[in-house]
Amino acid sequence: MPAPTPTVCQTFHRAIELIGRRWTGAIVQALFAGRMRYCDIRQAVPEVSDRMLSERLKELEGEGIVARIVTPETPVRVEYELTAKGRALEQALGAVAQWAEEWKDTPAQASARAIRA
Amino acid sequence: MPAPTPTVCQTFHRAIELIGRRWTGAIVQALFAGRMRYCDIRQAVPEVSDRMLSERLKELEGEGIVARIVTPETPVRVEYELTAKGRALEQALGAVAQWAEEWKDTPAQASARAIRA
Repeated sequence: MPAPTPTVCQTFHRAIELIGRRWTGAIVQALFAGRMRYCDIRQAVPEVSDRMLSERLKELEGEGIVARIVTPETPVRVEYELTAKGRALEQALGAVAQWAEEWKDTPAQASARAIRA
Repeated sequence: MPAPTPTVCQTFHRAIELIGRRWTGAIVQALFAGRMRYCDIRQAVPEVSDRMLSERLKELEGEGIVARIVTPETPVRVEYELTAKGRALEQALGAVAQWAEEWKDTPAQASARAIRA
């Protein structure tokens, strides 16, 4: 029997699909700018629908990546901010952004040919 | 009028949702080990269905991240390998894996409290 192929780490698998979920990466990236009100996030990620943005913010709150901060004023002020866990994503998402920037102009064919060089 | 909120970079947005698509991150991570046959990838990512794995490999080929290598033997040998563009993801995905590992045991509440400290 051949040696078993190592299986992919579940912790990584869960994390990449969490931050890669539709709009989630964009929302987190917007929040790197600092504490924001809902309408500011909406403006930073203009294509997201209200329903989706609310849902994603709730998910990110549930994951401990975003904190919802309520200030008892009239009217009540609600803001969103990255937690320490959320801010810790900056390096990883920065590396994804750098990869995307570096490779955005390389046609798929050229990239595939390169491995045979 | 207040200064406009900067919008999220589209190049980043597209990239994070590409690699965060269901199973894609896990498949790419498996391929960091080197050139693999379909059945080896299947073994490294055991929960993925055949239909989904084929679909994801085609997408990754279309993006120039994976190359499909056909060796004319009997029977024909088909293997998959990361291109230069695919291998360049290693740092970014490694950073995601490290983040996931570091924060996996932190309950959401503790993480949220940390920002008020």
